[in-house]
Amino acid sequence: MADFFDPSPLKLDPVIRVRRLGSLHIGGRSARLSDLPTRQVSFSPGAPLMRLDPNGDFEIEQMYAQYVQLEQARSACPVLLMHGGGLSGVSYETTPDGRSGWQEFFLRAGYDVWTADAVERGRASWARSPEFFSGEPIFRSKQEAWELFRLGPAGSWHADPALRQPYKDTRFPVTAFDQFMKQSVPRWATNDAATAQAYAQLVRSRGPFVLIAHSQGCNFAFQMACALPDQVRAVVALEPSGFTPVSDEALGALRQIPHLFIWGDYLEQAHPMWSQVVPRLQGWRERLQAQGGVADEWNLPALGLRGNSHQLMMDDNSDVLAAAVHRWLVQRLGNSDGRRP
Amino acid sequence: MADFFDPSPLKLDPVIRVRRLGSLHIGGRSARLSDLPTRQVSFSPGAPLMRLDPNGDFEIEQMYAQYVQLEQARSACPVLLMHGGGLSGVSYETTPDGRSGWQEFFLRAGYDVWTADAVERGRASWARSPEFFSGEPIFRSKQEAWELFRLGPAGSWHADPALRQPYKDTRFPVTAFDQFMKQSVPRWATNDAATAQAYAQLVRSRGPFVLIAHSQGCNFAFQMACALPDQVRAVVALEPSGFTPVSDEALGALRQIPHLFIWGDYLEQAHPMWSQVVPRLQGWRERLQAQGGVADEWNLPALGLRGNSHQLMMDDNSDVLAAAVHRWLVQRLGNSDGRRP
Repeated sequence: MADFFDPSPLKLDPVIRVRRLGSLHIGGRSARLSDLPTRQVSFSPGAPLMRLDPNGDFEIEQMYAQYVQLEQARSACPVLLMHGGGLSGVSYETTPDGRSGWQEFFLRAGYDVWTADAVERGRASWARSPEFFSGEPIFRSKQEAWELFRLGPAGSWHADPALRQPYKDTRFPVTAFDQFMKQSVPRWATNDAATAQAYAQLVRSRGPFVLIAHSQGCNFAFQMACALPDQVRAVVALEPSGFTPVSDEALGALRQIPHLFIWGDYLEQAHPMWSQVVPRLQGWRERLQAQGGVADEWNLPALGLRGNSHQLMMDDNSDVLAAAVHRWLVQRLGNSDGRRP
Repeated sequence: MADFFDPSPLKLDPVIRVRRLGSLHIGGRSARLSDLPTRQVSFSPGAPLMRLDPNGDFEIEQMYAQYVQLEQARSACPVLLMHGGGLSGVSYETTPDGRSGWQEFFLRAGYDVWTADAVERGRASWARSPEFFSGEPIFRSKQEAWELFRLGPAGSWHADPALRQPYKDTRFPVTAFDQFMKQSVPRWATNDAATAQAYAQLVRSRGPFVLIAHSQGCNFAFQMACALPDQVRAVVALEPSGFTPVSDEALGALRQIPHLFIWGDYLEQAHPMWSQVVPRLQGWRERLQAQGGVADEWNLPALGLRGNSHQLMMDDNSDVLAAAVHRWLVQRLGNSDGRRP
């Protein structure tokens, strides 16, 4: 295990030589609203009221993916970065305290990198609610994020940054916590099926990918591996929060897809959600292994890395973790010196 | 004028040599919700109901900016790409029919490129409404976009793509119109002040910039030029839809900032909004000139370029237009062969 956390520096490109960068929207469908009443709207303060008809045809339930393709990738397979709930692909960009994020790391390590904004989040956009997105949007408060993402124990959050009491050894850049919260996006609890469908279209048409997923995003990564095993080369699950149950037979399709589960610190002491989540995910991992698949687990505190939060890709050792994931991919897929086929 | 549309190819880098790419959120403030009732939510189909408390502290009114910085920029000043209303920075990425967008063009032409998602749009996220964002979100229907963006005359839109009747010479990739509509994001009519404030923080802290703005975004570009003239090197206004009135004295600050206004086709025949907008903006441009400033105008049909839509950066001659803008910047700023200072 120590190998993966070898402190000797990796070969990272100081200049990223880009062949193409861009984006696309994928998935979703056309949908119609009718019979809603018109209303009067002023589009800027003091401007005259205009009649607004909310009816018509709309595109809904699409997702967004941004890609950076290298002149010469050193990995045979691009990574797809999948964010967690209430967040967007920004999770993998510059950290809240201004360090390079995982998107940049994997580019410098020689991978083409795709970054997703899942349905309803970020540049994917969102649709009228409750007509199209049923239920109400949910906004995560700072206190909930502080506790759920395990930056400090229950009761340690305070509106005044100077009075917050994070874990003494936390690796999250807590002085940039409010900056991090600017990345939050609202979520609905009702869009999982549409999200899985959009991801499937992306993975089917643009894969194969190495999936690197975080929290809620891991559920979609597991679903993609089950549904499209030929399009998924590996799954790296950063603190997965759930999975969609499948039969042992369906799980057998994942035998050829190495999985890696990574867990941070304070899983037992902090927010009670984790004491439910972790055993369930360990059960999932053991079922993968029982099928004969590779399903490795890194419990970071057990490996001597203390203080990692739920937001592993933003913690102060984010580069160490990214390098370890890269070394694991090289070992499991053996493609480090490969050229794009 | 013909010079700018010189068909001889520009020197564009086939490989974009990137020193740094990333993003940040900027602007906004912390705000508190209290006394809202709790409710019960199921976070996935069939899962048990959980109590959800919507109260707490939130970050609101921030914006998002993504940057790509070159190893060696050939322009002394980065461009900031500012999108229009109901859209996000995606406007400047890959076109809906899959061609390279303006973000990529200006990188290949040697500029560092920043791309904004203004307050409430895309990765900027949005805040609870009506508690924080007053009024209701507004969703633009396909029909409204088709007519307002001048892809065809009134009545030419149809839900069935095969039955739509675009202008025969339209340069918008109309077969990708539904794909384009996946880029739409909801908007509020009440966030202009917060948006201007966030843009000002970006331009003040990360400028100077060349501002390239589209439609509603031009209003914010004009405001930035007035408020922070030392941080704005030029303004390129793609079909501006409005401006915030200022005194002649305040306008004098813009004397040193060359402006370029670009207009597409069918401004008189199509959606009636344009017959109000164009004369107002011509008045604004003439006031700039009366102050002794450079305020050029390209009326594309008058220059022999027929069929351009409101979405100039997506039209089939988007590269020709980008190259012309680049040549104009070189002529007006004289920095084409300059190195980053």
